[in-house]
Amino acid sequence: MTDVNAASDRGNRLLRALLRMPVDMTPVWLMRQAGRYLPEYRALRAAAGSFLAMCQTPELACEVTLQPVRRFSVDAAILFSDILTIPDAMGLGLSFVEGEGPRFQRPIRDRHDVAGLRAPDPTVGLHYVLDTVSRVRRELAGLCPLIGFSGSPWTLATYMVEGQASEDFRRIKGLLFTDPATLATLLAVLVEAVTSYLNAQIEAGAQAVMIFDTWGGSLAAHHFLRYSRDPMAAIISNLNRRRDGARVPVVVFTKGGGCWLQALVETGCDAVGIDWTTSLAAARAATRGEVALQGNLDPMALYAPPERLKAEVQAVLADFGEGQGHIFNLGHGVRPDVDPDQVGLCIDAVHAASVRSHP
Amino acid sequence: MTDVNAASDRGNRLLRALLRMPVDMTPVWLMRQAGRYLPEYRALRAAAGSFLAMCQTPELACEVTLQPVRRFSVDAAILFSDILTIPDAMGLGLSFVEGEGPRFQRPIRDRHDVAGLRAPDPTVGLHYVLDTVSRVRRELAGLCPLIGFSGSPWTLATYMVEGQASEDFRRIKGLLFTDPATLATLLAVLVEAVTSYLNAQIEAGAQAVMIFDTWGGSLAAHHFLRYSRDPMAAIISNLNRRRDGARVPVVVFTKGGGCWLQALVETGCDAVGIDWTTSLAAARAATRGEVALQGNLDPMALYAPPERLKAEVQAVLADFGEGQGHIFNLGHGVRPDVDPDQVGLCIDAVHAASVRSHP
Repeated sequence: MTDVNAASDRGNRLLRALLRMPVDMTPVWLMRQAGRYLPEYRALRAAAGSFLAMCQTPELACEVTLQPVRRFSVDAAILFSDILTIPDAMGLGLSFVEGEGPRFQRPIRDRHDVAGLRAPDPTVGLHYVLDTVSRVRRELAGLCPLIGFSGSPWTLATYMVEGQASEDFRRIKGLLFTDPATLATLLAVLVEAVTSYLNAQIEAGAQAVMIFDTWGGSLAAHHFLRYSRDPMAAIISNLNRRRDGARVPVVVFTKGGGCWLQALVETGCDAVGIDWTTSLAAARAATRGEVALQGNLDPMALYAPPERLKAEVQAVLADFGEGQGHIFNLGHGVRPDVDPDQVGLCIDAVHAASVRSHP
Repeated sequence: MTDVNAASDRGNRLLRALLRMPVDMTPVWLMRQAGRYLPEYRALRAAAGSFLAMCQTPELACEVTLQPVRRFSVDAAILFSDILTIPDAMGLGLSFVEGEGPRFQRPIRDRHDVAGLRAPDPTVGLHYVLDTVSRVRRELAGLCPLIGFSGSPWTLATYMVEGQASEDFRRIKGLLFTDPATLATLLAVLVEAVTSYLNAQIEAGAQAVMIFDTWGGSLAAHHFLRYSRDPMAAIISNLNRRRDGARVPVVVFTKGGGCWLQALVETGCDAVGIDWTTSLAAARAATRGEVALQGNLDPMALYAPPERLKAEVQAVLADFGEGQGHIFNLGHGVRPDVDPDQVGLCIDAVHAASVRSHP
């Protein structure tokens, strides 16, 4: 699917676009591009026994990270891991209940629980992630860059306090309203934890890092700024943004954060992830060209008939328009029952339709 | 809780604010102000046997509509009904499964199903709603205005095609991607149905009407304009906006639509509902003072300690700032286990904190 020249392009396109430099065609990768929709993933998952075992075994996590890079002409690999590795390393006891998502055995409920938390040393409690990063970089051998990631402090705090995914965020918002000082302490520990985790990933070889702010969009605007945006800004200001002479770009993605794009630019990030409810043209105007934009196909478009899928891909490219700084992605992750051929078609359509727009 | 003068103010405040005219204090009502959190509601619900029986019996629906008006100093009553009365009248067979929400026995799946649909004559299939409206107006006797409502065409279509609430909107988006002509036909029938339904409510005495676009926020920006915004605009252009010499204001509320406020103004509405993720100050800027704004306290703030709840109310008022055209509301409905005293405290706090801001 890729010849030597294309492979060489795959090595540069993403990082250049994240820094708003000209590229030969729009780079593309997809959130959850490594995952259950791939038969080779399901085979490995069955052999590994559990999702967590796959994350925690560098050989397996590396293999899963590489699967979509081999199958498709994506312009980046993204570390196969979970956003909840940090709270797990803090001793909360992470498990995954089939069909129900993550659950913590020892959730954080009050001031006392928070007082007992320490930011983990990533080289100890999260060494398996760093091993995976080094291994993936070695295996990729420059074919395409590797993106590392973490959850945002607010998102991690939400899971830690709710104990699992929540529909109404009642416990974490209860903490926000009844004991904001304890929430602030929790977020401060998480800022420290995420900062050292991402710096360790960069040190191990991650060439770009992304902060997933999955639940920032649950907050009222003024609370978002204080409890989600500001902690992300604190992290970004302490990241080591250069490695081996190259800048390590930082992407911030707040799902449902389309109203807060200017506030996200103020975190100091290089790029902002955009979900499908925000037009890329509107996002460009709101961010005044100060950052790159990553997005934003509706993940449900991967179920559309091929010709319609191609048209939707073209609509996303046209919405961004001419100029630098677009990384094509979905507005959310690939769903587990998507046909892999549709993913391939989407990726190839991005390249085919954008090759002329960067002459 | 209200003296004669205050009662008289309750008669005018909402409608004046919806038309951006000066008011003595910010009017307030809450989505789902009639509902399960009220013990008097639960008593009536137990006697009625089912939620649908309450909606469909004008005596009971009227009584439930009036309960929060009696208990609190809210500035409006909102018709107690369900957004799915229209598809039910179209023969889809609505039922409510305890703890799971609405379900249709005969969902719409394809071109053939859509071809069999006709917009119901509201004076026939929905006469119980119109009876409730007349009855409530009679009972209110000018104490405060009555708001009628409907679901938006996109929201109704979503429920009709999915058959129930959906997490991923896969069936309705499947229709959008595979057979947009059939989706357009379905939406056209619903535009006709909602238009005659709201006009009948106005004719029966509704003094303002609101279109709940609960699921518009699931759409990509360009699809939102075409499949949710445009049908709402088509309805609004055919509403009878005058009755008994007074203008009947129209409110549009797209949950998660904070990025699309200018597009919503273009529907021709008088006011836009704002959820808590959008700052009212930003919404005022985006809508350039062309409409009133209704919102936007995070519903979870009703669980906050009283002093904190008051502070959050004040933050909403301050975010809107000085000037006309604010109707206080939640960004979503009152939750079933909220303490009614907290609702009363919220409503009184709005009035107390805003009385000076409209001298």
